[in-house]
This record gives sequence, C-alpha cells and structure tokens, in this order.
Amino acid sequence: MDETIWIDGTKTTTCLTNDRGLAYGDGVFETIRVVKGRLTLVALHMIRLKNGCKRLSIPADWSSVTEQLNKFIQSNYYGKDGVVKIIITRVSQRRGYSPHGGTSRCILQWFSTPTYPEKNYTTGVSLYSCALQLGWQPQLAGIKHLNRLEQVLARQEWQSENYAEGLLTDYQGNIIECTMSNIFLLYGDKLITPDLSHCGVAGVMRQWILSLSGLPVAVEIGHLPLNSLEKATELFICNSIFGIWPVVACQNYRWQAGNLTRYLQEKAESVFHDEAMD
Amino acid sequence: MDETIWIDGTKTTTCLTNDRGLAYGDGVFETIRVVKGRLTLVALHMIRLKNGCKRLSIPADWSSVTEQLNKFIQSNYYGKDGVVKIIITRVSQRRGYSPHGGTSRCILQWFSTPTYPEKNYTTGVSLYSCALQLGWQPQLAGIKHLNRLEQVLARQEWQSENYAEGLLTDYQGNIIECTMSNIFLLYGDKLITPDLSHCGVAGVMRQWILSLSGLPVAVEIGHLPLNSLEKATELFICNSIFGIWPVVACQNYRWQAGNLTRYLQEKAESVFHDEAMD
Repeated sequence: MDETIWIDGTKTTTCLTNDRGLAYGDGVFETIRVVKGRLTLVALHMIRLKNGCKRLSIPADWSSVTEQLNKFIQSNYYGKDGVVKIIITRVSQRRGYSPHGGTSRCILQWFSTPTYPEKNYTTGVSLYSCALQLGWQPQLAGIKHLNRLEQVLARQEWQSENYAEGLLTDYQGNIIECTMSNIFLLYGDKLITPDLSHCGVAGVMRQWILSLSGLPVAVEIGHLPLNSLEKATELFICNSIFGIWPVVACQNYRWQAGNLTRYLQEKAESVFHDEAMD
Repeated sequence: MDETIWIDGTKTTTCLTNDRGLAYGDGVFETIRVVKGRLTLVALHMIRLKNGCKRLSIPADWSSVTEQLNKFIQSNYYGKDGVVKIIITRVSQRRGYSPHGGTSRCILQWFSTPTYPEKNYTTGVSLYSCALQLGWQPQLAGIKHLNRLEQVLARQEWQSENYAEGLLTDYQGNIIECTMSNIFLLYGDKLITPDLSHCGVAGVMRQWILSLSGLPVAVEIGHLPLNSLEKATELFICNSIFGIWPVVACQNYRWQAGNLTRYLQEKAESVFHDEAMD
C-alpha cells in the first residue's frame, strides 16, 4: 500500500490508512460515564468489549488497554466528570475483507457528559416509533460494534425535541430496543426486556438490571411483539450514560412513571454517585 | 468535545476525532481500478457513490470530490496502474447517532492492483459456501457503505487458497453475492443475477453487465434459491477490479467456463484496457 493519503484535498499522514475501523466498521466500542474521575460500570463495559472482540476474532492486549484507559483518565481528567469512549479497531497492512491475522488499535476519546432535559428523568419521555426495522444478523447481535448505520438512519427519522428516543422493532415487528438505549416493560410482577439474539445492542445498564437480586419483580428476557405495548403497566429505557428514564408515551399509548421505575432509577443513580460501588 | 485523543497510548491530533466513518461506519466507498493513470468505469462508480450518499442523506460537494480525485491521480499516479479508494464519511462536531446536519469528508487512498492467480481468469474459481447468512435491511441494501462486518466475518470462514471467493446467501437461503463480487448464473438463454433489494452490494461490474445490449441472452435480475445452483449451465463472478472469473465449483456442483462467460470476460477486459472506453 502506498502511504499517500489525501483528506479533503490535503496530503496527510494519519493512522487512518490501515484502519479497518474506518474501512469496514471492523471494531467495537464503549462509552463509559466518568464521575469525579471514576469509571462507572467499568467491569461490565470491559466484559462486553472483550466479548465483542472475541466474537469478531479481533485480538487485543487487554492489560495494555486497561492501562491506557486508566492513564488517559489520570493524566487528563483526574477528578472530572465526562464520558470516555474506547474504540478497538482491527488493523491490517493489506486491503480487503480478510483480516490476514491483523492486530488491533485502541482509540480513547473524551466527551463532556451529555446534558438532557431534567424532565426526561422526572416526568419521563416520549418515544418516536421508528419506521426502520432492524435486520436480523445473529452473528452480530448484541455486540456494540462499529456498524451503526441502522441507528444513524433511525435517528434521522425525527427532529422534534418532543421525542427523547426512538423505538426500534425488527423486521417481524418485535420490540427490540431504542436507538441508543434498551427498553424494559412491566407486566404485573414480571419485568421483561426484549431478546437480542437476532439484533440489537446488549447494553451495559440492561445487563446491570438483569443482574440485580432482591427485586420485587421477576426480570426476564422475552419476545415482545409491538402490540405488547398495550398491556404494559410501566415502561422505561436505560443506558450507561443517562441511567433510567420512564417512558410515558409511544404511539397512542400513555403511561405514568411507576413505582418500580422510580425504585430502579434511584438504584441506577447510586451506580453513578456512590463511590462504594467501585 | 475535548480534542485530546490517544491512540495506542500516544496523544495525537487526527481527523478521527469527529469522523463518523470511524465511529459508526457512516459513509460510503468505491474502489476504482486505474489503468495507465485512467480511471475505469468511473461514471458508474460515481453514480453509485452519489446514490449511496443520497440514500444515507450524507451531503457532499461532488464537483470538489471529482476535482480532488482527478488531481490525486494526476499529481501522484500519472500513467500508473493501481486502485484508488474513495471514502466519503459524514463528519459532525457532536457525538451521537444524530448527524445534526453534518458535513462530509473525502478520503482518497492508493493501492497497488491486487495480484490474483492467472488461473482464476483462465480455468475458473471454486467458491466456498459461507455459513454466514446476510441479514435483510432494505434501507441499506445495494449501497457500498462502510458497515461491512458481515463480509469481514464471512471472509474469515475459510483460509484455504483453494477458494478464491465465498458464496453468500440471505437468511432465507437465497443466493445473493460473494464477499467481494457479484454473481451471475446462466439458465439456457437467460442470464440471471440475484435481486439485491433486501441485502447485498450492487457492484459496478454487475451494473455494467446489466446495461449491455446486443447480448445473445436475456439478462435479468431474479430470485435464486440456493438449489438454483443445480440447474445453472454457466456461473461467473465479477467486480470492477478483477473483471470476470468463471466459477467451476461450489458445494458438490461442477461447471466449466462456458462460451457466454468467455465472451463477457473479453468485453470486460476491453473496459480496462481499451482507452476508447473512456
């Protein structure tokens, strides 16, 4: 490969030339909330990152990645609040889909904590019902990989700030997730989150909720056709950055933030703000 | 966004920080064969590139892209043979799936022309039958976008050099394409290439063949279940870099390079080597 690369008409030398993250979305990522310089839910994030690399056969030196991550925070963001993004991409000296063995690259970026309207947390949010239906690909399902065009297309479907998130179904019309968060629906004493074995991203906050013990309800992974919305008594969405938001409207259905949602919201906040959770 | 970025433990400043091509595979690409400094099939490549950007709502200044492309070749590769890769990525100053308007970036790279065994062209190739089944996503089907993990996974299924390419079906078992090429099957006086409205990449060489007039057979787009292999009398695969290769084996089926394939191979070679085709 010639090392000449032009970007917007200018000759440059960057790591882009052999990065399969750019070429094919051949990589995985995590966005971790940092509170007072402390990485939150870091164990679950690292498990997902490693699992994603394993499923894609991307090699990585995990002790080095962890060391880089810690040094990145300590050197630049000690005691600060924000979001750190870790991208692991596959690198190869040859063009083409075959990785030819290949190595990997760890890219770390820092972002300020996103600011969302306070009412998302207190009153709850409305979901836009996206027309895009997620395709099935069991070999990629669950992984937070870099092939995110479905989410990009879905997020372009609405501009109105009335909708904090968009609900995504699969091509069979089953509820799967939202564009940047997972969803839970309460039916009596059962809290159900959609099965993600065909499509969707298995979020870290979803995983954290699934791992909770001592809840007043059973938490299950299930199959939820779109008309399941009708009989749900509480709904909420979650991710590892904003925590948990009650859902109060989607299509013609209306709900109120319920007791279970409030209880889980508080528990999730303790993950971010209780240093004993480390 | 903070501009600090670390790559493999080193602080750096690159265009990666705001590139949604890397973050989400939010972009499209073309690989164009260059013969003696001449871009081959460039009109069809540019049509597909523009169409892909349009479908993803990625804005681009096409006169600038064309100017950059021509200048890139003239300045660095005048009279040379190789492959130029054009990547158009969406750029945004904010994190998250919403493009927030956004602009685009044109990345140009040069590669040497890949060298394949001569027998791929003369004797023909064997196809590996990939286990991965392509997911359906009509909103992305046909586009040569940067979300190529399915191809990466499929290409990792075989290492043996006995297979020059891998045959991909969709989750219903229909023949769709190969990992880096399209496929045509001959049935008597009908030459059929799979319908790509649910998945697959609509290749430029495929498009060129579909546009040919005066052929001794009808050329059609059709629905081809995997067992269609059995009754095909000739098979070939094609892309805009290697042209056309006869397929002589796939699963337990065997074929010989036929007259139509030979005829089309010669025509395709004229695209690369006949300067009058500009």
